[in-house]
Amino acid sequence: MTNPILVEVSRGPKVESVHRGAIAVMDAQGKSVLSFGDTEAPVFPRSAVKAIQALPLIESGAADAYGFGDKELSLACSSHSGEDEHVAMARSMLKRAGFSEDMLECGGHWSTNHRTLLHQTTIYPINSTPPAVCNNCSGKHTGFVCTAAHTGVDPKGYIGRDHTIQKNINTVMQEVTGAAHDEDICGTDGCSIPTYAVPLSAMATGFARMATGVGLPPERATAAKRLLNACMNEPFYMAGTKRFCTEYMTLGAGRLFAKTGAEGVFCAAIPELGVGIALKVDDGTTRASEAMMAAVTARLLPADDPLQQGLARWTDKRMRNWNGLDVGRVTATLPL
Amino acid sequence: MTNPILVEVSRGPKVESVHRGAIAVMDAQGKSVLSFGDTEAPVFPRSAVKAIQALPLIESGAADAYGFGDKELSLACSSHSGEDEHVAMARSMLKRAGFSEDMLECGGHWSTNHRTLLHQTTIYPINSTPPAVCNNCSGKHTGFVCTAAHTGVDPKGYIGRDHTIQKNINTVMQEVTGAAHDEDICGTDGCSIPTYAVPLSAMATGFARMATGVGLPPERATAAKRLLNACMNEPFYMAGTKRFCTEYMTLGAGRLFAKTGAEGVFCAAIPELGVGIALKVDDGTTRASEAMMAAVTARLLPADDPLQQGLARWTDKRMRNWNGLDVGRVTATLPL
Repeated sequence: MTNPILVEVSRGPKVESVHRGAIAVMDAQGKSVLSFGDTEAPVFPRSAVKAIQALPLIESGAADAYGFGDKELSLACSSHSGEDEHVAMARSMLKRAGFSEDMLECGGHWSTNHRTLLHQTTIYPINSTPPAVCNNCSGKHTGFVCTAAHTGVDPKGYIGRDHTIQKNINTVMQEVTGAAHDEDICGTDGCSIPTYAVPLSAMATGFARMATGVGLPPERATAAKRLLNACMNEPFYMAGTKRFCTEYMTLGAGRLFAKTGAEGVFCAAIPELGVGIALKVDDGTTRASEAMMAAVTARLLPADDPLQQGLARWTDKRMRNWNGLDVGRVTATLPL
Repeated sequence: MTNPILVEVSRGPKVESVHRGAIAVMDAQGKSVLSFGDTEAPVFPRSAVKAIQALPLIESGAADAYGFGDKELSLACSSHSGEDEHVAMARSMLKRAGFSEDMLECGGHWSTNHRTLLHQTTIYPINSTPPAVCNNCSGKHTGFVCTAAHTGVDPKGYIGRDHTIQKNINTVMQEVTGAAHDEDICGTDGCSIPTYAVPLSAMATGFARMATGVGLPPERATAAKRLLNACMNEPFYMAGTKRFCTEYMTLGAGRLFAKTGAEGVFCAAIPELGVGIALKVDDGTTRASEAMMAAVTARLLPADDPLQQGLARWTDKRMRNWNGLDVGRVTATLPL
């Protein structure tokens, strides 16, 4: 099926570009609450499921052993901008587990956030590449290394599909989402760990379970709530300054959880409604995934909810040009 | 109509994202040579028509008066990366016309090219914004100021829809493309000049005329060929290091002309075939417009043409992750 147009980008009086996609809103029993487009086609979840991938960090006892609080757990679920606080926290976590940042296998890169990149040029030579601890996924990788350290597993090679760390995450992902992983549709993520394609409906069901605990063993339900609460309590550590995830969760003030992924994937949960959300933009564009996430959240909350006003700036976002002129809009257009 | 999928982005064994779009290939008589998707819907041409917008620079006599050669004319048609050579050339051109870079009304910005941005941090304070002469459109704006200077028009306000410079370009654009401009579908470009939506078929026809001179008055035909030749002779000044336009024209060695625009628009010409090309990615993504441009060029050239091998690296381009691993491909999939 051809997915519907869910976002329009207009310039002056005319639509200039459009984004198609699919959105699944599910409850913890796996019942569809709201759906747009094809939500059963397998999709690589990429970084949008980092909170599920962080469950072993808590379930293994590693988080408690190393004294990890909300900031540390939020970072373990993050795609951060590489700001100084993110990098310092990853280093601190690794140190507590008895390792250095040299253990990280995600590869280094300059921040993809403009302001942070400019700041990084005051720290790293411009003809170099910042170290792996600056990688937007370093928090997740730090969580992997800490889990390995606490459980007596050699972290070396932890990005490999056959390493104990990834095999365990593979099992946890299938249990939480309810979708079986197919080795034939496994890709390699930007940070080099495996990513298995599953339907958006399964990802959304997984986050409904993470948010409510329904359908999870008691210990896992506790771990899941602890992770989502950590992200909602410390949203800066989950993304960074002016980032959508951080601002969306800051707006939500404990009522909204969301995590972005590459190629236009986004997962979220609204605990008070007992629902999980998963969406994918067909063309992989972040401007569209953010507009869609804000719009579906607005659709699910009551019309008179105080959060509606805050969401509106993302569902119909102004575009300004180099002179600061208002030249267009990015507008979510979910069908009624 | 729903445009066809023309580019697939795969990760490992699976397609992860897709890009839809339209492509028009036309001759100078306005006859369709090849077509995909809806090529009659109006599209903002954005920066893809800078070579047409530069015609008055030559036709007014300004280019000759100020001694502009291929490098200067290529820069006047460019969306450059803001490398030192681009900025120095824009300054030199303005100086020859008796003006300084303070006349530019495009607004300043940091380079959107990663390597150039890092280099710019050695020149400009990181808490500032580089000046307008660093704007990727500063070459085009410099051409506007030089045209005004030579014709005795006050350049001030030259970005306005009602300024002599823009009114003249408005006329030239309609004459070359054959498409009437509708004031109701005029938007403001990133660099603040007006952009009028016209069909891809008209843009492609315009570039077939630019390349062949067919359908243009003799003086305009000469000016058009001089501009396209300048870009093909000095492709670095049209874009920059490792940029698609520069590398595509370097590969073509005088046989291929191409110019990118924002939101996934691309125009090109293959003079020896007498055709112009115009395309738009529905979702505005550059990775797709580049793959589509390479693919349609490959389709138009003979199968045994020596350029085919060079084009293949863009029609099926590898994606590498932060560790340099080959994780996917961006592949043009034009229907047969």
